[in-house]
Amino acid sequence: MKAALSSRLLAEFVGTSMLLAVVVGSGHMGEVLAQGNAAIALLANSIATGLILYVLITIFAPISGAHFNPAVSLALALYRAIRWRELLAYVPVQVAGAVAGVMLAHVMFGLDPVALGVKARSGPGIWLSEAVATVGLLLTILLGHRANTAEVPALVGAYIAAAYWFTASTAFANPAVAIARAFTTTFAGIRPIDVPGFIAAELLGTLIALPVAAVLAGRSRMGGLPSADR
Amino acid sequence: MKAALSSRLLAEFVGTSMLLAVVVGSGHMGEVLAQGNAAIALLANSIATGLILYVLITIFAPISGAHFNPAVSLALALYRAIRWRELLAYVPVQVAGAVAGVMLAHVMFGLDPVALGVKARSGPGIWLSEAVATVGLLLTILLGHRANTAEVPALVGAYIAAAYWFTASTAFANPAVAIARAFTTTFAGIRPIDVPGFIAAELLGTLIALPVAAVLAGRSRMGGLPSADR
Amino acid sequence: MKAALSSRLLAEFVGTSMLLAVVVGSGHMGEVLAQGNAAIALLANSIATGLILYVLITIFAPISGAHFNPAVSLALALYRAIRWRELLAYVPVQVAGAVAGVMLAHVMFGLDPVALGVKARSGPGIWLSEAVATVGLLLTILLGHRANTAEVPALVGAYIAAAYWFTASTAFANPAVAIARAFTTTFAGIRPIDVPGFIAAELLGTLIALPVAAVLAGRSRMGGLPSADR
Amino acid sequence: MKAALSSRLLAEFVGTSMLLAVVVGSGHMGEVLAQGNAAIALLANSIATGLILYVLITIFAPISGAHFNPAVSLALALYRAIRWRELLAYVPVQVAGAVAGVMLAHVMFGLDPVALGVKARSGPGIWLSEAVATVGLLLTILLGHRANTAEVPALVGAYIAAAYWFTASTAFANPAVAIARAFTTTFAGIRPIDVPGFIAAELLGTLIALPVAAVLAGRSRMGGLPSADR
Repeated sequence: MKAALSSRLLAEFVGTSMLLAVVVGSGHMGEVLAQGNAAIALLANSIATGLILYVLITIFAPISGAHFNPAVSLALALYRAIRWRELLAYVPVQVAGAVAGVMLAHVMFGLDPVALGVKARSGPGIWLSEAVATVGLLLTILLGHRANTAEVPALVGAYIAAAYWFTASTAFANPAVAIARAFTTTFAGIRPIDVPGFIAAELLGTLIALPVAAVLAGRSRMGGLPSADR
Repeated sequence: MKAALSSRLLAEFVGTSMLLAVVVGSGHMGEVLAQGNAAIALLANSIATGLILYVLITIFAPISGAHFNPAVSLALALYRAIRWRELLAYVPVQVAGAVAGVMLAHVMFGLDPVALGVKARSGPGIWLSEAVATVGLLLTILLGHRANTAEVPALVGAYIAAAYWFTASTAFANPAVAIARAFTTTFAGIRPIDVPGFIAAELLGTLIALPVAAVLAGRSRMGGLPSADR
Repeated sequence: MKAALSSRLLAEFVGTSMLLAVVVGSGHMGEVLAQGNAAIALLANSIATGLILYVLITIFAPISGAHFNPAVSLALALYRAIRWRELLAYVPVQVAGAVAGVMLAHVMFGLDPVALGVKARSGPGIWLSEAVATVGLLLTILLGHRANTAEVPALVGAYIAAAYWFTASTAFANPAVAIARAFTTTFAGIRPIDVPGFIAAELLGTLIALPVAAVLAGRSRMGGLPSADR
Repeated sequence: MKAALSSRLLAEFVGTSMLLAVVVGSGHMGEVLAQGNAAIALLANSIATGLILYVLITIFAPISGAHFNPAVSLALALYRAIRWRELLAYVPVQVAGAVAGVMLAHVMFGLDPVALGVKARSGPGIWLSEAVATVGLLLTILLGHRANTAEVPALVGAYIAAAYWFTASTAFANPAVAIARAFTTTFAGIRPIDVPGFIAAELLGTLIALPVAAVLAGRSRMGGLPSADR
């Protein structure tokens, strides 16, 4: 059974919005409470993000596929799991949802709805981090569906929680997230000028991940991929 | 097979009582041990609460549905998953269980059984937080049952653990919890005068969540909902 | 298929030994590294214990039932899920395994193999805590088997990790653990003189839990209980 | 269906590389952010490692068996679950992948690609720790497959996260990991001179675990073991 496109776009909007509300809100709460110990703030931030990804992907996957991420939608379009015109509908909704989620977090915490990020996140190590983080995310999703579709929500949550820690960029791995995090000065923020480098690295990671996944999957077809729209 | 109403009410009482014992007890233990670092206390508080929700909902769901929350019972009554007279029986038992749980935590830690909360939790950002937290909780439950009923206990535990962090109110999302937490001066407490605002926001969130869930579920029926009593 | 009694006793010995090595070892490591912040030490201690319980119960349940706890074995004997003579064989092996696990942790960390505990854990709040912790553990196991036997390992791990935090005693909930922890001066230790109070409270909790579980289970039989030996 | 050897070796290389990137990267990030509180750094390090093991073993198990560990490959060869010539192909690929992962972490964090470890990890308690950690890992894998193959990825992740804390060595339990960690001066490093002691202890643990697992499994065959190559 295939959900109507309007329901699917609403799911992508609500899901991406909740994701960003958690990324920004938990980062802010962690920073405010942690007395300057950024490791404790990041622990709260990464655990909250991993848990909400498990929740959001579980409940929205049957509706929209629960991408919440233009890089994931692009990869699935390249795998023909969604159509190109669906990709074109998903991406702006994901970006709008992400920005709305940042604004929601701000208003909940009594901050101005929007502010331009001031945290510098740039340089070769950071860009490599984003590319690696995105390769890992896509291998998790693509090979995770091949192994067991029912576990993909938990796998993505676990992967992203770990990726906060092993990458120098704290693993945005998502162009909509990169854009939205440019609209906050809190713990999770990024300078607007650094966003294009993140997006470029994430798209590069996407293009690297696909042939790697194909080789790893070997003779078997990439079974189990979501195809909510056919 | 349907459990007798007395067993179901006992399950709601014991479950809500255990939930509050954990919310208040782990908050107190965290605060006492954390040397003033509230992020560490909240980390302990949120992890313990998320874990016990997973346990309590798993073991009590086959008996009472494991609501432990008047907002959840109200939503299920509106969905006709429980009857109105069952709602009227559940709510006072949930509130009584919640208060009993606070008292149990107090006595275990050598505190007076009851004390009136002193922590101010009020203002537009807080109320918005409670509404958002409740919308998220109900989407988690309603769409979680639609996706896979067996995962609802883990989903609710994961959601609440994350919601401690991304909302400015630390996400009570439960009128019985709001009332009970007015009876403690520990880390998890709330001033009695602030309770009505919490309850109003939680009920507003409940009413917002239902049509959102219905639209997201689209043409499909809201399958999988618990209906312990029919 | 039923494992031979010798294999089952070996499983109880190895499992209880591993459990105590983790309880004592992770408590010691946490205390040494946490610079006096006991909340961080307890966070490490509780997470490590919860995770290893999930592992140990999963892998040893098909062999011995994975009790690792005289209170659990007693409850199951009262439910006739194991025989009385099996209870008599299990209990000393669990106690011996627990003490061996403490010694193993000590030797790994370069401490004397055995030392008498010095940490006072006594008083009405502590005893109430142990009784409550044991009631909760047994409800988790008994009703967990009724709900879904395959989830019992994760349920017990989650319950105990939470119970470290919401009880004033940090929830030993296990007479073999109480005895063994009297042989260490590290973070997890207890004065030998305080052990009888713990055991009495745990046995009281066991006797309270059984009728509560029976009432909650209602007309249904307590299905799903392990009966490794019949 | 059996994957081609080249796909399997690529899976072992990529998986072991990701594992080490997480071990070293999250250890470094934790140490940099934790303001000298090593317990918080180890909390981040252990949680990230446990989560990524769950992910990597889930997605790569259907391809290569997801050993990422010469001790595991050796044990499976002794159980005839893989062939000896496959063992000979796996081990160097695992070691090379592990070193590549360390280098990847270094470059992401702007460090020199390779540096010789300076952290002393030696002595009887440390060696005993490594032997115990490896026995526990192999019991987890061997008896975990016997209990439920689908849970092995979560079991191994949970076991290793706990083992960071209860052993004095922080539980490498993997000769490829021991070698690779000699190439970093960060939090997870080890002096090259201490590596042979680790490997010897890990191999000793492997040889101890096999008969223990066999006795515990009793009359039943060690069912459920992976045999990706037959």
